[in-house]
Amino acid sequence: MSSTSIAVIGGGIAGVTTAFHLARRGAHVTLVDDGGSGQATAASAGIIAPWVSSSDGSYYEAYAAGGNFYPEFLSQLEELGIRELGYRRSGALMVSADAADLDAVEERITRRVQDAGPVAGTVERADERRVHELLPALAPGLTGLFVSGGGRVDGRLLRDATLTGALALGARHVPDSALGLERARTGWRIRTTAGNLDADAVVVAAGARVTALLEPLGVHVGISAQRGQLVHLGLRGVDTSPWPTVHPFAEHYLTPFDGGRIVVGATRESGSGFDPRVTAEGQLQVLRNALELAPGLATATVLEARAGIRPVADRGVPLIGRVPGADGLWMISGYGAGGLTMGPLFGDAVARDVLGEPAPDLAAFAVTSG
Amino acid sequence: MSSTSIAVIGGGIAGVTTAFHLARRGAHVTLVDDGGSGQATAASAGIIAPWVSSSDGSYYEAYAAGGNFYPEFLSQLEELGIRELGYRRSGALMVSADAADLDAVEERITRRVQDAGPVAGTVERADERRVHELLPALAPGLTGLFVSGGGRVDGRLLRDATLTGALALGARHVPDSALGLERARTGWRIRTTAGNLDADAVVVAAGARVTALLEPLGVHVGISAQRGQLVHLGLRGVDTSPWPTVHPFAEHYLTPFDGGRIVVGATRESGSGFDPRVTAEGQLQVLRNALELAPGLATATVLEARAGIRPVADRGVPLIGRVPGADGLWMISGYGAGGLTMGPLFGDAVARDVLGEPAPDLAAFAVTSG
Amino acid sequence: MSSTSIAVIGGGIAGVTTAFHLARRGAHVTLVDDGGSGQATAASAGIIAPWVSSSDGSYYEAYAAGGNFYPEFLSQLEELGIRELGYRRSGALMVSADAADLDAVEERITRRVQDAGPVAGTVERADERRVHELLPALAPGLTGLFVSGGGRVDGRLLRDATLTGALALGARHVPDSALGLERARTGWRIRTTAGNLDADAVVVAAGARVTALLEPLGVHVGISAQRGQLVHLGLRGVDTSPWPTVHPFAEHYLTPFDGGRIVVGATRESGSGFDPRVTAEGQLQVLRNALELAPGLATATVLEARAGIRPVADRGVPLIGRVPGADGLWMISGYGAGGLTMGPLFGDAVARDVLGEPAPDLAAFAVTSG
Amino acid sequence: MSSTSIAVIGGGIAGVTTAFHLARRGAHVTLVDDGGSGQATAASAGIIAPWVSSSDGSYYEAYAAGGNFYPEFLSQLEELGIRELGYRRSGALMVSADAADLDAVEERITRRVQDAGPVAGTVERADERRVHELLPALAPGLTGLFVSGGGRVDGRLLRDATLTGALALGARHVPDSALGLERARTGWRIRTTAGNLDADAVVVAAGARVTALLEPLGVHVGISAQRGQLVHLGLRGVDTSPWPTVHPFAEHYLTPFDGGRIVVGATRESGSGFDPRVTAEGQLQVLRNALELAPGLATATVLEARAGIRPVADRGVPLIGRVPGADGLWMISGYGAGGLTMGPLFGDAVARDVLGEPAPDLAAFAVTSG
Repeated sequence: MSSTSIAVIGGGIAGVTTAFHLARRGAHVTLVDDGGSGQATAASAGIIAPWVSSSDGSYYEAYAAGGNFYPEFLSQLEELGIRELGYRRSGALMVSADAADLDAVEERITRRVQDAGPVAGTVERADERRVHELLPALAPGLTGLFVSGGGRVDGRLLRDATLTGALALGARHVPDSALGLERARTGWRIRTTAGNLDADAVVVAAGARVTALLEPLGVHVGISAQRGQLVHLGLRGVDTSPWPTVHPFAEHYLTPFDGGRIVVGATRESGSGFDPRVTAEGQLQVLRNALELAPGLATATVLEARAGIRPVADRGVPLIGRVPGADGLWMISGYGAGGLTMGPLFGDAVARDVLGEPAPDLAAFAVTSG
Repeated sequence: MSSTSIAVIGGGIAGVTTAFHLARRGAHVTLVDDGGSGQATAASAGIIAPWVSSSDGSYYEAYAAGGNFYPEFLSQLEELGIRELGYRRSGALMVSADAADLDAVEERITRRVQDAGPVAGTVERADERRVHELLPALAPGLTGLFVSGGGRVDGRLLRDATLTGALALGARHVPDSALGLERARTGWRIRTTAGNLDADAVVVAAGARVTALLEPLGVHVGISAQRGQLVHLGLRGVDTSPWPTVHPFAEHYLTPFDGGRIVVGATRESGSGFDPRVTAEGQLQVLRNALELAPGLATATVLEARAGIRPVADRGVPLIGRVPGADGLWMISGYGAGGLTMGPLFGDAVARDVLGEPAPDLAAFAVTSG
Repeated sequence: MSSTSIAVIGGGIAGVTTAFHLARRGAHVTLVDDGGSGQATAASAGIIAPWVSSSDGSYYEAYAAGGNFYPEFLSQLEELGIRELGYRRSGALMVSADAADLDAVEERITRRVQDAGPVAGTVERADERRVHELLPALAPGLTGLFVSGGGRVDGRLLRDATLTGALALGARHVPDSALGLERARTGWRIRTTAGNLDADAVVVAAGARVTALLEPLGVHVGISAQRGQLVHLGLRGVDTSPWPTVHPFAEHYLTPFDGGRIVVGATRESGSGFDPRVTAEGQLQVLRNALELAPGLATATVLEARAGIRPVADRGVPLIGRVPGADGLWMISGYGAGGLTMGPLFGDAVARDVLGEPAPDLAAFAVTSG
Repeated sequence: MSSTSIAVIGGGIAGVTTAFHLARRGAHVTLVDDGGSGQATAASAGIIAPWVSSSDGSYYEAYAAGGNFYPEFLSQLEELGIRELGYRRSGALMVSADAADLDAVEERITRRVQDAGPVAGTVERADERRVHELLPALAPGLTGLFVSGGGRVDGRLLRDATLTGALALGARHVPDSALGLERARTGWRIRTTAGNLDADAVVVAAGARVTALLEPLGVHVGISAQRGQLVHLGLRGVDTSPWPTVHPFAEHYLTPFDGGRIVVGATRESGSGFDPRVTAEGQLQVLRNALELAPGLATATVLEARAGIRPVADRGVPLIGRVPGADGLWMISGYGAGGLTMGPLFGDAVARDVLGEPAPDLAAFAVTSG
């Protein structure tokens, strides 16, 4: 299928990895993305530690498989000479003021880490002193479970690095908005601001916007928009580079980056629509949670606030594969908060599927139209 | 004294009004200011309603006199053809969930408003329905006192308009930092980044920086730096232009501007030093107070956060007049949160004093060196 | 028709003035606009001086009529208590190094100014000394024609003030994107990100986006997108408030605002598409033209660059009125660089037409579908 | 000397590398820097290719030695687990429309590259086709000399990484301004906004601000401020990661980064003073030079403009070492445009000298007071 043309709509992690893997396999691929606001990847906190998540079932399996795939994916980029990936193996630290919380999950997490193998590292029960040593800004009275293989990644850097990789391998980038999708004589026509783009096959990797693109085709895939707000804090004169990500048995977390930058968040605002605003109550919630967890951040500088729109699937698992009743059309969406972890793996899977190459079994994630 | 040269250090409200009033009286005046960050005027919430404040004694007298002077000051600018002053007579609304709070102050505020005359307008007891009508975003269950003459002003616009007025009247502006102050052969020498500036007389209107400028001269005036943080919220599609400022018997408040912009704040961070940062705990405090007072702002957009450094006098009143033991040197500082209200009046008073013209009695505010 | 609902798509000057005039006449009006980038009004230089333009024919007549209407429009806003309009009667100065250029237009401009009446003020031939006095930063060797009634306005302030006025009069604002337009059972349905909005009548005031909204209806109105780039320069310590706008017999100009801000521009990039970017060659062109005209701006600070997308009509005149073959649908677009001048007048005209009230004869601007 | 305390004033490349090397050697080191604007490192274009420069004599020797030291310095950071250094061995391409320009320097550059050894790579004469292949956006008609070992580095990333390294090794960071320097009972006292900081020894690495810090001590070192302005351009959909830096036999250049970012500049504005503004004429010059050299950048987006203040030494060589007549005081400044290349090496040399360890011979760069 290498002489056919393939277009990918969307420049978040799902889109750029799909384009990258298509280009790696020699396909003629064009990525359409306008760099508009609201992209979940651009706002993401960048945690790559599926083993500590509370998810289970098919979602967890996909999440864990995504985490296992990371080292290979990062190597693929490094082999192209791309070094600015924004990834660090920081470790992930679950914490609670109640040791019973940790007791309840220790066995499950230990088993997950063992199943994952070296990528996940080891599990360590951390007493209060050790928790303080790992991240001194945390509240007193917390004990934890430390998973050494957890990682953190700068979503924007990784996205840009992946796009650089795709371009280096021959992909093309059209910096424009995909306004609509129509059947063309052969294949599909993407309507953009500047005109039209025809392709034999199209992969819709447009996050929560997938709904607006597919509904006019009569396809209802059950993806909705969920806003997440985060805040970036700056600690001056503190070496945050060895700090792990922190997970307090709740939906919020703390992700330290080098140079004193700590990302805290995130809200999960279901029903927000595609409205990537930073709101008063969202900021209040993020800051309140962050300072309760880490009072040592009280005097940190507020560097910036971000909002992204996650695509959440009604079915609770990502939706990946052919769009039913639409020959030559694929989609990849619905990751919720796990997109940065799962994106590279599923981008690869979709690329294989589009090209008719052997691909992982995606039956659990099959797209259906309600 | 019109052939002597006068320099004013500082471009906040105190500095620009001093320069303006000096220029109006025909003086040769040069304003030195680098537009650096931390200026209290640039971050101010812009309330001009001294009558509802909890202050008393000499501070209140100065505060009230400043409020009374506003109409005259605004007219002076308008007469020069300067129209963008950012002022609106919005009314000021004190609110409480406990009517006893209002009972306790109603008599005092009514007397103050009567003493002030037409500028302060009238006092109206507002029941819950009326409070809601005045500002629908407020929490239910509040009743209030509405003072119709309260005003709000955009500190940056008014500052720029005043500087425009000063320039129109012949003042000069040196956009540079005043690093130090030394006695010159006659008068004073101001050391700046780019060189030196000599003047026969100098007015130090440098806010909390006055301490760093005077201490090397052996003068200790007892002014310290207090950080104030605010947040600007945006309500889309709401006509906020008729909304009054809101005062909930606490140090925080809410100042609506046209076009859906509402300023909420502010912290009073004594001991902050001159460190104009937006911090995690500061933002948390501002947002928590704002949404408790006005839950209708929950989904408002966070437009920006600001931090300014107020000069606070140990003696509790502004310090205005000659610097003791330093012939030809004046200062004007120490307003605390009342600078925008008092600045124009005291800028005028200092200008008169410097020029040897009849000036108000400033004995209560006399500068002493500890 | 006052019980019918009317929606206006677009929040630039055409949209807000249409909504304002509809609301003034008691209509139920909803403005749909997402505040997205590229709006020509938000980037405009703000010159209100049609008499010095090189245009003629119907375009000039509309342009001049728009200028004549300004005082009335500003009064309508002021009567609502809205004072921050950003307008100043600055005068407009045509300049040339070749007096013959001025000779060639003096008669025409004098006649235009006389025809316009007091709003346009007087015409004065300015020698080199007078030109320098009016605006000292200009190149030596220029003489000019000064039209005292020229004005300048801050497009964003006027837009926001007009929206405030509309809201005060009962209009509603939906801050969302209009993605498409469909016939509904009665009237029209506007598809937005968050859902649908139905209205009995719709006025499309979406600038260059009108094409994308009408083409799916089979209507081809001949409006294309033209990018304009501008730069805002800052002169510190200079009172620019008395400076006139400057017009050097070319497409570029200089618009001074208070507080040392000078806007220079603008490019006329036909064929740009709706791509509101600030480009290297655009900035180079704007700065080269500006410093050739006004070398005194060389050391001015570059404060910001803006880009807006103007709607340009193939027919060379604005297109205003009913959309042919689409009952209940109006449009207002195609002003080119004259939108800020013509918007208020034509917004009023469309409002009258929609409501079935007596309206100016718009035959010269009638919309046709190619 | 390991129990003595050492303070470093300045957080540009000279300051952070001095602090890093001091910390590596076990010293108690405190870095004082307020992160203020104007830092040359923060604005630098990031070229690490001394061999193609037009400099000679002691300046060139220092420049080349700095380039040779880079691999070792980067390794020192990587050994600490710090990976985000922003460095790429991009190659450096000298170009000219006149082959005679290249003929005139080819021998010298070839010899320099051979002298430098593997770090500098190889020299290749590039015909027009090859020049186009290396960087397609360049003007036609250019031929070149390509030095494969040239590198580019993101000054901000490298600075932050070095500070992270210093902190990891025990250094302390005081985020405050150094306002003055006084002799203390033993050693020195640094006056800051928040108070005083005493140290046994002080290294002044404050760029062009060194003059203002040393003059009150009666030391006149002959360093002046030179502004450099740059522009960051963005090419969408172009893989710029393999592009070399470009040097057109002039003072301007072009530095490509990954992700479509190209830095062009820079002005050399002697006599600017410490005034880090982006000016109209500066931007015009940078853009004109850039588009003449690389017309393919015409439609690139202007992403941001930066201005930094370089310290330039009257003597034409960096000034490094003990400050005469001031026991316990060192300085490191005066690099001109070569600071990012020389900083790491001389930071190491000063650290050794302060600690009394064997250091390179710095006689050619000895500080004298005029």
